[in-house]
Amino acid sequence: MTAYDQLMAYQRETSALAQIAGRLGWDQETMMPRGAAQQRAEEMAAIEAVLHARRSDPRVGEWLAAADGAEPVQAAQLREIRRAYDRAVKIPAELATRIARVTSEAQGIWAQARSDEDVAGFLPVLTEVVNLRREEGAALAQGGNVYDALVEDYEPETTGEQIAAIFDAMRPRLVELRAAILDRPLPRGLEGSFDAHKQMQLSQVLALAFGYDLARGRIDKAVHPFSSGSGADVRITTRTNEADPFNCFYSTIHEVGHAAYEQGIDGDYALTPLGRGVSMGVHESQSRIYENQLGRSRAFTGWLFERMRETFGAFGIDDPDSFYAAVNRVQNGYIRTEADEVQYNLHIMLRFDLERALMAGDLQTGDLEAAWNDRFASDFGYAVDKPSNGVLQDVHWSVGLFGYFPTYALGNVYAGCLHGALRTAVPDLDAQLSRGDTSAATGWLKEHVQRHGGLYAPREVIARASGMTPSEEPLLTYLEEKFGALYAL
Amino acid sequence: MTAYDQLMAYQRETSALAQIAGRLGWDQETMMPRGAAQQRAEEMAAIEAVLHARRSDPRVGEWLAAADGAEPVQAAQLREIRRAYDRAVKIPAELATRIARVTSEAQGIWAQARSDEDVAGFLPVLTEVVNLRREEGAALAQGGNVYDALVEDYEPETTGEQIAAIFDAMRPRLVELRAAILDRPLPRGLEGSFDAHKQMQLSQVLALAFGYDLARGRIDKAVHPFSSGSGADVRITTRTNEADPFNCFYSTIHEVGHAAYEQGIDGDYALTPLGRGVSMGVHESQSRIYENQLGRSRAFTGWLFERMRETFGAFGIDDPDSFYAAVNRVQNGYIRTEADEVQYNLHIMLRFDLERALMAGDLQTGDLEAAWNDRFASDFGYAVDKPSNGVLQDVHWSVGLFGYFPTYALGNVYAGCLHGALRTAVPDLDAQLSRGDTSAATGWLKEHVQRHGGLYAPREVIARASGMTPSEEPLLTYLEEKFGALYAL
Repeated sequence: MTAYDQLMAYQRETSALAQIAGRLGWDQETMMPRGAAQQRAEEMAAIEAVLHARRSDPRVGEWLAAADGAEPVQAAQLREIRRAYDRAVKIPAELATRIARVTSEAQGIWAQARSDEDVAGFLPVLTEVVNLRREEGAALAQGGNVYDALVEDYEPETTGEQIAAIFDAMRPRLVELRAAILDRPLPRGLEGSFDAHKQMQLSQVLALAFGYDLARGRIDKAVHPFSSGSGADVRITTRTNEADPFNCFYSTIHEVGHAAYEQGIDGDYALTPLGRGVSMGVHESQSRIYENQLGRSRAFTGWLFERMRETFGAFGIDDPDSFYAAVNRVQNGYIRTEADEVQYNLHIMLRFDLERALMAGDLQTGDLEAAWNDRFASDFGYAVDKPSNGVLQDVHWSVGLFGYFPTYALGNVYAGCLHGALRTAVPDLDAQLSRGDTSAATGWLKEHVQRHGGLYAPREVIARASGMTPSEEPLLTYLEEKFGALYAL
Repeated sequence: MTAYDQLMAYQRETSALAQIAGRLGWDQETMMPRGAAQQRAEEMAAIEAVLHARRSDPRVGEWLAAADGAEPVQAAQLREIRRAYDRAVKIPAELATRIARVTSEAQGIWAQARSDEDVAGFLPVLTEVVNLRREEGAALAQGGNVYDALVEDYEPETTGEQIAAIFDAMRPRLVELRAAILDRPLPRGLEGSFDAHKQMQLSQVLALAFGYDLARGRIDKAVHPFSSGSGADVRITTRTNEADPFNCFYSTIHEVGHAAYEQGIDGDYALTPLGRGVSMGVHESQSRIYENQLGRSRAFTGWLFERMRETFGAFGIDDPDSFYAAVNRVQNGYIRTEADEVQYNLHIMLRFDLERALMAGDLQTGDLEAAWNDRFASDFGYAVDKPSNGVLQDVHWSVGLFGYFPTYALGNVYAGCLHGALRTAVPDLDAQLSRGDTSAATGWLKEHVQRHGGLYAPREVIARASGMTPSEEPLLTYLEEKFGALYAL
């Protein structure tokens, strides 16, 4: 066997073990008995230790040094393995252990603090998490930018400065669009109660309509919807709220976007480093284009309107145009996960600027709440009323996910680029969507994005698919046109 | 840290990883999408390879050589670790990996073959499994008996010859008892259809009545009911047949017996070698005494009769004595898992003799179906009508479980011994069972058997609990008295 073949055989086992760790995470959120949490923590720690040892195994370094990857696919495999190996060996085992321990504790402290509206109670452990991640970032950056080194984990080959350039161009136009919309009357919402079991049934219809392959997946409920797994076993979760079926349906379509990416990857890449989505941003581009540009379009909501009438009977809205407006209502709200297409990115930019300043040492955790509240008031025009609606609302920072937030808005930007190209490639897209037929759209995305898995770097796969350097312009134009028409601006 | 402490810390991670492998097995039978089988086979192979490498790690040998285990618990831990280490180092890693991969695939092929009544479709992979296990047995036996070496995996310190001696003593009395019973009129059975959802609801009532802790477990459906996991996460499965609710209820009680053993082990042993049932035979003694000596007693069936009337209304049987007779009907039937207490052991002896011959090389897989059908006709007096009622009925051989079947009948023998001692210790047991109260019985079993986990060798824990050298006599006496009375022999 060549060094490349040995490396790939070893890597295949590592990928299989990583799939197992992912399945445990799924189980924990869907099936695990509540009394098993402590034992499960030990199980997770044991398999993570196995994975860390494998990723930083000296043999990987030796195989990488000896391996010849002339073919583009081989070169990409080696690039991904090298990235993981370089990162793994740069982080001292002792630091990795401390981060795992502190973030595990911090998550519980955060949950309690959020429930108690007690920012001060969260600050000590948050400070510890921030310091540990800055230490990790410094070990990875080796003199370079700490925040960029952390972003690299979620969005390879993308810097904070590149992201800031995009976000700075978006922010004034989104603030202006939001203000104009909120000057107009609020469209009617749904009325009544929507049976949870029927929501799950229609969820499955929607998942199938968007091409989700149930022979290689399944749909369950979880408190926070997610997609999990790669290749032949990609599972999604959703949730039900009897007052708000859109939460269930659009969570489902969103997670189907993630799952379709994993299910759509070239089967030859299964259980290799290329056999999963290349970055969080590209992943989010798929979930967002499924959910928003396709799922919240006038054409598709017309079809959904009929399905909802069949399923639930009357619900206070009697025509598809009003239904479309209800699906796309823009209203004040503090919570990122409940935000509409227009305001969502403002929530992200707020977090991006604050966490980047934290990692640079330009903002101290003691000043974080004030900075959050100032920024929120400036962009949204009203004050945060309590920490659970502000700085304590998200789990991410407690578990050390600095560098992750911007990928949500990058995903929207990428979705905007892809949507422009998709509209050109499929001129009668709306006619298809109005029949509930997404196959041309999802087929185009599979062909141009999903099947490549990790073959191309994130910005490259978007550029190849959309035929343009990734830019915020298509997303902004789309939002201004869509909501300009909806709200008669 | 002492060598003992180092060994135990290492072992704790190994136990956690073994729990993960078990959870994957559970997932495969309950939740896994059907298209994921091939990928899952690779995942299972990867974690089995990790486990094998850890069990045979040279450091374990060094720690074992240096460890001091003067305390009984420490000595027992070392005994169990040594047993696993000695076995693991004898099995080549490559063979262990192949067995894991082939048996994972074979299980799917078996399920398809059973559904298609296609023995020929199953034979190639069965032959592969048989050959791999014979190879493994030869590596373990090192010149000794191949079958005994495999039995050791499930029932330590027990040989095929010892088992054959017990079975030979049982067989004539069981054949005679069976023949006498089948000469008598068949008691009435249940009439009507029993809603599957209501069966699952009453299953949960029964599981709780037998002390199953749902905070550390869950109940799902599977084709072949099983219990899975140790410590804080012990899951059971059952199945429903609308014509035969007893199948569901007694499968549930049976699996609760297994699960109660795992849930009842001293918490200090969690994630150590002592933190699981010591053998399959002792495990089966718990499942069988729950299911039969307790669950099928006149006293408990009186309580179940009332619960079934509440749940299902009328079902053609109007008094508890007739209900007791219906629960304990002895009639012709092909399926081991549906067999009554009298005939069950005859099904096991058939499998024991065939698999012992397969492993000895005295029987070829191509002749297996004929051998099965001949033996069945000889013991039961009529012919097997189709493979799913014969040689294809059990999953065990497809997953390589040779040496496992006899532990079912050993468990019945052990249950007989325990039942005698339990009746002496709890004189008013029937009064309690007639109220649906199993707590004194299950408490006694927890105290005398379950809490010890792997502390004592299989025959020792039965001897300590029952106060006698394990023997088939109590079981046979119990069966002859119970069925003698029921059938007026």
